Amino acid sequence: MAEPTVELLAYSPDPERVVAVAARRSYSRHPAKELWDELGDEEVSELLYRVIRQRHLSVLEHVHFTFAVEGVSRALSHQLVRHRIASYTQQSQQRASEQHFEFVVPPEIEDDPVLVREFQETMNNLGTAYQRMLDKGVKKGLARYVLPNACTTKLIMTMNARSLFNLISQRICGVEEWEFRTVATKIHEVLMTVAPNIFKYAGPPCVTELVCYEGENGERCGRYRMIPGAVLRNGFRKTTGDELLKHSKTC
Amino acid sequence: MAEPTVELLAYSPDPERVVAVAARRSYSRHPAKELWDELGDEEVSELLYRVIRQRHLSVLEHVHFTFAVEGVSRALSHQLVRHRIASYTQQSQQRASEQHFEFVVPPEIEDDPVLVREFQETMNNLGTAYQRMLDKGVKKGLARYVLPNACTTKLIMTMNARSLFNLISQRICGVEEWEFRTVATKIHEVLMTVAPNIFKYAGPPCVTELVCYEGENGERCGRYRMIPGAVLRNGFRKTTGDELLKHSKTC
Amino acid sequence: MAEPTVELLAYSPDPERVVAVAARRSYSRHPAKELWDELGDEEVSELLYRVIRQRHLSVLEHVHFTFAVEGVSRALSHQLVRHRIASYTQQSQQRASEQHFEFVVPPEIEDDPVLVREFQETMNNLGTAYQRMLDKGVKKGLARYVLPNACTTKLIMTMNARSLFNLISQRICGVEEWEFRTVATKIHEVLMTVAPNIFKYAGPPCVTELVCYEGENGERCGRYRMIPGAVLRNGFRKTTGDELLKHSKTC
Amino acid sequence: MAEPTVELLAYSPDPERVVAVAARRSYSRHPAKELWDELGDEEVSELLYRVIRQRHLSVLEHVHFTFAVEGVSRALSHQLVRHRIASYTQQSQQRASEQHFEFVVPPEIEDDPVLVREFQETMNNLGTAYQRMLDKGVKKGLARYVLPNACTTKLIMTMNARSLFNLISQRICGVEEWEFRTVATKIHEVLMTVAPNIFKYAGPPCVTELVCYEGENGERCGRYRMIPGAVLRNGFRKTTGDELLKHSKTC
Repeated sequence: MAEPTVELLAYSPDPERVVAVAARRSYSRHPAKELWDELGDEEVSELLYRVIRQRHLSVLEHVHFTFAVEGVSRALSHQLVRHRIASYTQQSQQRASEQHFEFVVPPEIEDDPVLVREFQETMNNLGTAYQRMLDKGVKKGLARYVLPNACTTKLIMTMNARSLFNLISQRICGVEEWEFRTVATKIHEVLMTVAPNIFKYAGPPCVTELVCYEGENGERCGRYRMIPGAVLRNGFRKTTGDELLKHSKTC
Repeated sequence: MAEPTVELLAYSPDPERVVAVAARRSYSRHPAKELWDELGDEEVSELLYRVIRQRHLSVLEHVHFTFAVEGVSRALSHQLVRHRIASYTQQSQQRASEQHFEFVVPPEIEDDPVLVREFQETMNNLGTAYQRMLDKGVKKGLARYVLPNACTTKLIMTMNARSLFNLISQRICGVEEWEFRTVATKIHEVLMTVAPNIFKYAGPPCVTELVCYEGENGERCGRYRMIPGAVLRNGFRKTTGDELLKHSKTC
Repeated sequence: MAEPTVELLAYSPDPERVVAVAARRSYSRHPAKELWDELGDEEVSELLYRVIRQRHLSVLEHVHFTFAVEGVSRALSHQLVRHRIASYTQQSQQRASEQHFEFVVPPEIEDDPVLVREFQETMNNLGTAYQRMLDKGVKKGLARYVLPNACTTKLIMTMNARSLFNLISQRICGVEEWEFRTVATKIHEVLMTVAPNIFKYAGPPCVTELVCYEGENGERCGRYRMIPGAVLRNGFRKTTGDELLKHSKTC
Repeated sequence: MAEPTVELLAYSPDPERVVAVAARRSYSRHPAKELWDELGDEEVSELLYRVIRQRHLSVLEHVHFTFAVEGVSRALSHQLVRHRIASYTQQSQQRASEQHFEFVVPPEIEDDPVLVREFQETMNNLGTAYQRMLDKGVKKGLARYVLPNACTTKLIMTMNARSLFNLISQRICGVEEWEFRTVATKIHEVLMTVAPNIFKYAGPPCVTELVCYEGENGERCGRYRMIPGAVLRNGFRKTTGDELLKHSKTC
């Protein structure tokens, strides 16, 4: 039973400064190198706050993050690659053999002794059916048609910070299925360790915009737990401090 | 046992003229409306030939084609959506029930009486396992984890002609698995009925560029069959007519 | 003195129905062709409202609009092509001669008799300098370096409805310079004639989201005038009808 | 008289290894971290060669390069931002004053004493006209309409290696105007210092594919000078070593 892992393989060095220099670029006549050297850490934070607050999000595109995402299902990867402003390279079922494949077990099923036994049995039967086809000379690219959505995969994904804001906004949302929510939360946690002054402003709309687009009445699901440090700064919306305070207590 | 279908739901009206007018736009000072009215059909064809030959392919982006792609496996759709310069809306396994799901059978398996029986049995068992989970109250979004790659899906896809050139170039290639090759060929066939003077120039690199990037020696696979009418016009490459003639006989 | 014109050259036929069918695609197991035939006009409207309200905006990408934009300055075109999810073909100053070029006069200058005379004189001098270079054998691609931002250009632009929502949202905003605001407003007006049930929901954030990201306090500029028919439907935001009413009176 | 400068502000660390690990990802079942640690430098080079030769170019998208491009004309920047798979932030003429603006002088003009005097005079007159408008209270965003294409700009640009291959391929081409050719060559030179085993394969089609799409007969312009070290490795095309040798001597 596989657990999703998210590891940061590489990323733009000094990401907060890169974005802050870009933010200055529009307004200044000074060379970029000067802007780079002159900006104090405080100013960097202040610029990041201002561009995100004013939704000048294009400057976030100058920094990229490359993740190894592993132990996730192909159900997840099929959804993940729908985020198009990104680059992916994925372990291919046409090229790498899936003998003894690992699989993801949804938590509701894992917690039920009967369901989990049946689920595992189904997976075992599929493993046997897959192997029998390979033994009879069927190519991996065809035998893979019996493999289940639960089958795990490994991929490398590169995304810029703007696209990651969008992914986090959609996928940490409480109406999202558990697997993508887990992966998005892990991505957010990793990003908070390397660019906290950017990613503390990322989150689902209920947190960053005090609005919910899901459901008929936009009801809140109450499932999002904010990452420590990812405190929403005031001023994102025309709203009173009291409203924000009330909000952060309830979700 | 499902068969893939490709149906053109909608497309930019007068696609050849739209592209030809765009081709003229760069060089001319006349209003677009005049260019539109003045171009004869012959000139349209000539302009299309010239821009494609000179690889000024951006003008192909002005026309779009919206397809309903149905009866294809989720193995196929996972690959298809990797073409990012396109828009997709797909039947969701989280929202639509997959009770009595249809499935794709790879031809090599279909042709072998033993393999096909085992394949169908596996599919039936999965259907039962899936149904049992739903009966026990598991959500569709979780029960789907047992569904196989072979399970069919339906999607709507919109792509511009440049992106379609790229799809056809890669996916009609003889090294591609049969399912995507089938879908890409059907897409090409449909496009030939509505914009032949554009899409007769589309094809795998062995046909359009007389070059093959696959394999160690770039060997030819001999599998591509040109669509009637999709005749390569000379001049795409610095090569003699004899070479081209010899080529079109062998593949 | 040129006036910007925006003309719709071509667009996806039946755009509202295409988007509505795509909206149904996610949830339904029926073939697209059936969805297409079954949907009544009322249902189409209702589906459009629902997907836009819930921000499932990807379905808007299935319809495209091709515009001839003419009589605009190169200052405008430089900004316009920054909208990257779009396709452009532009009259080239390297290829088409700019003899007797036309130019855009900003309204503040046009209204001032002294300023406008000086402006026109400057333009005339540039025309002379440009012509003298051509006469001395300088190539168009180099002589163009003296041409001003005010110099007009012609281009063909194709964008999907989602990208157009974004363009309208940003460029009709009251803080935008007059030229882009004029062009964006004309684009919006044209779209309202062919797909009103989609584009009546497009507008700057102050109208569609009751929020303003511009300026320190997000102050309203009071400049946006809603297109007749582009009435905001309730429910986009958690707000009372009274607030909305008050809002639509003030801007 | 400004000279274009190209400076690398930031880039994905260890770019060659990142791409090589991605290249392995498709075929291997091992975790990315293992692939990262196991690959020797020789293997990295070999993998880079193989994926580029086989045109599996998507793996090149995992590495990004952020440049400060300065001292270039707005004619250049207008063309540059047409490369859409990239991110830009540019000094704004609406926000930063262009008092005493610098300008680019095309070399053909610079070399002619009469032309260059006239060119400079024109620029001076524009500077005066611009300043007079500001003095009379015209906003920068409107006064900019008199500024010429030659006026310099500063921008920050982030592109992945695949998009950079495309830029180099098109813009180092001998038919391209001198300014973009200069900038593209400088970009290539900088990239050769940080990721030579990737960018030695980049170049115009005449070098990398032995084909030219420009002009009626695809004639060679003879202007490209290969960067030392950017030697084409055999095998990119089905061609004899002799042909390649002859080729690399002539251009």
